[in-house]
Amino acid sequence: MARFSEDALTEAVIARMDKCDNPRLKQIMAATVRHLHALAREVKLTEAEWFQAIQFLTATGQKCDDKRQEFILLSDTLGLSMMVDAINHARPGSETESTVLGPFFVEGAPDLEMGANIAPHAKGGAPTLVSGKVSDGSGRPVAGALLDVWQAGPDGFYDVQKPDAGMDLRARFRTGTDGKYHFRTVKPVSYPVPTDGPVGQMLLKLGRHPYRPAHLHFIVSAPGHEPLTTHLFVKGDGYLDSDAVFGVKDSLIVDFKPGAKPGEFTCEYDFVLKAA
Amino acid sequence: MARFSEDALTEAVIARMDKCDNPRLKQIMAATVRHLHALAREVKLTEAEWFQAIQFLTATGQKCDDKRQEFILLSDTLGLSMMVDAINHARPGSETESTVLGPFFVEGAPDLEMGANIAPHAKGGAPTLVSGKVSDGSGRPVAGALLDVWQAGPDGFYDVQKPDAGMDLRARFRTGTDGKYHFRTVKPVSYPVPTDGPVGQMLLKLGRHPYRPAHLHFIVSAPGHEPLTTHLFVKGDGYLDSDAVFGVKDSLIVDFKPGAKPGEFTCEYDFVLKAA
Repeated sequence: MARFSEDALTEAVIARMDKCDNPRLKQIMAATVRHLHALAREVKLTEAEWFQAIQFLTATGQKCDDKRQEFILLSDTLGLSMMVDAINHARPGSETESTVLGPFFVEGAPDLEMGANIAPHAKGGAPTLVSGKVSDGSGRPVAGALLDVWQAGPDGFYDVQKPDAGMDLRARFRTGTDGKYHFRTVKPVSYPVPTDGPVGQMLLKLGRHPYRPAHLHFIVSAPGHEPLTTHLFVKGDGYLDSDAVFGVKDSLIVDFKPGAKPGEFTCEYDFVLKAA
Repeated sequence: MARFSEDALTEAVIARMDKCDNPRLKQIMAATVRHLHALAREVKLTEAEWFQAIQFLTATGQKCDDKRQEFILLSDTLGLSMMVDAINHARPGSETESTVLGPFFVEGAPDLEMGANIAPHAKGGAPTLVSGKVSDGSGRPVAGALLDVWQAGPDGFYDVQKPDAGMDLRARFRTGTDGKYHFRTVKPVSYPVPTDGPVGQMLLKLGRHPYRPAHLHFIVSAPGHEPLTTHLFVKGDGYLDSDAVFGVKDSLIVDFKPGAKPGEFTCEYDFVLKAA
């Protein structure tokens, strides 16, 4: 091997995958190599910058644990998560639109009775009744739909961001034959994504604010339908036009209206699932 | 925000960096976003594949510790490290060519007297005398050049890959006024890059072998000269044409000749540094 020219190097790396027996993996990795190499050439990456990138990615991996996913946060803040969303969810007809999963989803949230309060430990925050129904594209209620719900508290933190908080501000509800759901919580607030890790530091170095507009997270799933990962955003929030993760879609913004008592709110939203 | 089209999303993420006060960071991150987004669109990345990528990168970061750098291994095996090398080190005149650093360099190797044996604990392996001189582009010897040397042992492992091995098979030597160096070691052998981590598993899934041709690592540095990160490869090695990290250059292949006694070898190589 005399030495690889830049072009020859890219092709040599791709040719080395010739014996890969997984055509899809081969396709993705070949495209990854082409883009990585093209990126380095385009910006004429220096060795010091390469090493900074190595250190950044290492720190991002090491910030992850069973309660925090810093690589998802990186994907979210670089708009990659919403790009994957856009690629996989073309604008539906009447179906509810999807948005990012985010880094704070946890498997195994408690199954609560319809109507339960998912924020029993919240200090402050406006009591809010969230309700609506789950239906299919033709308006039929979906029985047995599972709503996995999670949100940040009035202090802007998810349970997993607080030491020893246990499961809080998250639950699962299952619809009956009428497809209806309702639960109590506190009105979500806008909050900064974590800035104590490499991704938050990246945002600050890029001159970007780390805030997300107030939202409730949902994964709504039911047999025979595509699982729906989405948010409900609070109308009027100051960060709707500059979400740090680019996740806002108009159809997901909900008017949180005054509730039964002063200081309380209601949020009504009907989810429409797409047939699988 | 109605919802971002795919094109609009990429531009929105880049526009969000408008207030970044570091033009170089902005340039690199904008190009990174463009290539990441283009990659996802080109292969129509599914959500499941995106999540596999998140898990792979997380595992890669978590495999790193003070003795192992799995992200460098990833960069090496995808040819990115050699691309950065090619971009930053155009073919020199008489100067020694560079190649990858690799994941096993450790700061603070012991300073040994010229002539010392860097492999006192090696079991088996052919005794080898490595010698030569360090000179500048016009042939003048470089006094006070530091040679940081490291290699795998006869079993194919670096010290840091073995529990409690301590510093072994690595040392630093400083040239005198004649620019000459020599030390004793064992002849390097070809070996597989670690396959117990995510990157090794990736190679196997891609149908790639994990072997590197036998080599000695050097970083040669001296005031007034560019530091040189390179290898000396063993002529005749079966993996010279298929190095798992694409690091071989013809000019770095050395004929390890028979030494003073049967079973011993000599490796002679003169390093030529580039003026800083």
